Amino acid sequence: MKLTKKDILGIKDISVEEIKLILDTAESFIEVSTREIKKVPTLRGKTIINLFFEASTRTRTSFEIAGKRLSADTINISASTSSVVKGETLIDTARNIEAMNPDAIVIRHSAAGAPHLLARMVKQSIINAGDGAHEHPTQALLDMMTIREKKGRIAGLAVAIVGDIAHSRVARSNIYGLTKMGARVIVAGPAMMIPRDIERMGVSVYHKLEDAIKDVDIIMMLRIQMERQQQKIFPSLREYSNYFCLNRNNITLAKDDVLVMHPGPINRGIEISPDIADGPYSVILDQVTNGVAVRMALLYLLIGGKS
Amino acid sequence: MKLTKKDILGIKDISVEEIKLILDTAESFIEVSTREIKKVPTLRGKTIINLFFEASTRTRTSFEIAGKRLSADTINISASTSSVVKGETLIDTARNIEAMNPDAIVIRHSAAGAPHLLARMVKQSIINAGDGAHEHPTQALLDMMTIREKKGRIAGLAVAIVGDIAHSRVARSNIYGLTKMGARVIVAGPAMMIPRDIERMGVSVYHKLEDAIKDVDIIMMLRIQMERQQQKIFPSLREYSNYFCLNRNNITLAKDDVLVMHPGPINRGIEISPDIADGPYSVILDQVTNGVAVRMALLYLLIGGKS
Amino acid sequence: MKLTKKDILGIKDISVEEIKLILDTAESFIEVSTREIKKVPTLRGKTIINLFFEASTRTRTSFEIAGKRLSADTINISASTSSVVKGETLIDTARNIEAMNPDAIVIRHSAAGAPHLLARMVKQSIINAGDGAHEHPTQALLDMMTIREKKGRIAGLAVAIVGDIAHSRVARSNIYGLTKMGARVIVAGPAMMIPRDIERMGVSVYHKLEDAIKDVDIIMMLRIQMERQQQKIFPSLREYSNYFCLNRNNITLAKDDVLVMHPGPINRGIEISPDIADGPYSVILDQVTNGVAVRMALLYLLIGGKS
Repeated sequence: MKLTKKDILGIKDISVEEIKLILDTAESFIEVSTREIKKVPTLRGKTIINLFFEASTRTRTSFEIAGKRLSADTINISASTSSVVKGETLIDTARNIEAMNPDAIVIRHSAAGAPHLLARMVKQSIINAGDGAHEHPTQALLDMMTIREKKGRIAGLAVAIVGDIAHSRVARSNIYGLTKMGARVIVAGPAMMIPRDIERMGVSVYHKLEDAIKDVDIIMMLRIQMERQQQKIFPSLREYSNYFCLNRNNITLAKDDVLVMHPGPINRGIEISPDIADGPYSVILDQVTNGVAVRMALLYLLIGGKS
Repeated sequence: MKLTKKDILGIKDISVEEIKLILDTAESFIEVSTREIKKVPTLRGKTIINLFFEASTRTRTSFEIAGKRLSADTINISASTSSVVKGETLIDTARNIEAMNPDAIVIRHSAAGAPHLLARMVKQSIINAGDGAHEHPTQALLDMMTIREKKGRIAGLAVAIVGDIAHSRVARSNIYGLTKMGARVIVAGPAMMIPRDIERMGVSVYHKLEDAIKDVDIIMMLRIQMERQQQKIFPSLREYSNYFCLNRNNITLAKDDVLVMHPGPINRGIEISPDIADGPYSVILDQVTNGVAVRMALLYLLIGGKS
Repeated sequence: MKLTKKDILGIKDISVEEIKLILDTAESFIEVSTREIKKVPTLRGKTIINLFFEASTRTRTSFEIAGKRLSADTINISASTSSVVKGETLIDTARNIEAMNPDAIVIRHSAAGAPHLLARMVKQSIINAGDGAHEHPTQALLDMMTIREKKGRIAGLAVAIVGDIAHSRVARSNIYGLTKMGARVIVAGPAMMIPRDIERMGVSVYHKLEDAIKDVDIIMMLRIQMERQQQKIFPSLREYSNYFCLNRNNITLAKDDVLVMHPGPINRGIEISPDIADGPYSVILDQVTNGVAVRMALLYLLIGGKS
């Protein structure tokens, strides 16, 4: 079975079957990164453009490693060096890249919908690496892969997502994905960080961390975007941390075999205490490892093996 | 036939036979970028340094893709990360790069003549990717390739180049190339944007767009460098646009099968109206596609197939 | 014989036998960079991360070229684009990179000891590409390689290191290495640039250039870090230059076959006069060439040929 879509823009538009296909494929790629020679010729002669309008180490690096382990040529374009500084529109940038005949364009952009616009304009496969507060589908896929790897299934699990739900593309993509896959999703955070109509997405809402994580199988802590704190969403980091930091005390409320996840980079002592981040429940680094495999799977499914 | 020069510094120094050789070779490389596996082993084991002292997405990306599709190793060095910030001279930078045994150095620099200086100092092939307001030979070559591809010839055609001729390396390189190849070249722009002695280069000068494009085969619109507008070359962008924006009305003065070209990135509504940029006369994206092929050809002719 | 250590953190911890092994291996790699096809398949399928928290052209480029000529995949991460700007700790950055299964991490950092911290935290090989004012082992290795290449030996030679000894990681690594290899090391500089207890490292101290370089075989001039001159270590560059610039007059005090070395980038006319930098005694560009070979050797010895 192959992926029939041209692009990966969000989890909202992906079917359960497609998610399963992606996760199964990603599992088969995990092994490549543990070999002595971490390289397969699958995408030899393919060109992948990493077009990043927002700074990112891990996501860009993860995509670059994924491409290179599949033998593709990878080209990085970052906003600071881009024609965007000369006032070119996103569409013109994309059309110009298209004219150089790449096979896939991975895009991160601060504007929600930017990848969708590109996908309509150009013939190449577009992968959304994060668009504003909208979606971050590869993050949700690597999260689901990690859950399935550790728990054997996603359906029937209780997953608490904690933090600034309103501004989190990670939360949105995971809510779409986890509910599709049959998990029960709970969100929690200060009132101003919970979107008004979030229940419509099929989730339960709590305003206390302790209530949210009670008896759950998975706790997914979101990163507090400290760079956004000019907007003063909450009184202080200290106050946030007092109420919403996952630590050795409150984690006992969850199931004994709870998994702790975080999309990174973590703010130690703010949304998660160091002993929990580094402790036995944490699968944070497994998420990173699986991120490379998920991105290899998507690149392979979208632009590989056409023959 | 091979290119006997070590470097590509400007169109002024290239013969008609050399231009034809480059364009013929570039045509043969067009096909590589449309294959399922866009890669030939021609430059395997060659090292190409992209040394950019001015920001550039498209030119750097075009060279990087060209190198990679020929299987060369490509290394990007940008001024912001370079030793230049530590006060090293251009010559020392170049000699240091030379000592690492690359095969070619692609250089963009804000100072006219910088690539020529390098070419005298180091043994490797130097390709000028734009030096100040002097020359941008690969742009002129891709422009000529595009004209020849669409019109079957260059000789005998009338080509209008419109905009800030005085500060445009694209204009200078194209004037050298197009007149050599037998085209009739017309330049147009506000008086302050036309160099005093430009007629000596074998071109006709007009100060009205309408006069310049009358009955021409090709209109080449230059980019208005808005970042330079501190210098206040003209009263306002609006005024410039009123007189020199190519649009659906004035384009009717040109031949029915006129081609519209632009080196990009375009300022929509300033030097070119969106409907013309995206319309049937526009070959702007063909220029970008041909840019990769021209750069593959130059790299191949300069450093490939020595045996 | 193989290198048994996991990491290259400093010359202090490397044995004489290990230094000889590295230099012998580097010599055998010199030839690769002079071939028509400058590439061997030794590290195919290996992933090397260049993690640079300080700007650098030459060291990063040298490592990138070294990796590519061994057929490894190389990924560049620079501090400005890194999660570090989001407040992530160095350890979390390293662990995340580790989770993507690279084979080696090359790190440059302004904090002394940063590479050692990484080496303890992650399972991959760490190569120190310069840590604060502490060590720069690959520079010392390429310097020793250059001396051995030109003089046939290191033992018994007199080497003067001149400049800001106190703030120079190049000086420290060379002092460790050269004394281990049996050279006699002299350091010289203004009083404020000489660490109090430097004699304990087995060197002689002079405060006049002329005294230091008398009858030496090698003069190693250090770069004056002009970007540090806010701290006003010495009254003026002019005064420094009056007393410590190596020029055609004072160089006659050294042996007739003296070698002049400099880690670059050089400040012409400040620590070294242009005629000396470019003259017959200078092996500055040989150092650069040998830098690629030393880095190839280290990558090969650390992560290659495990089978």
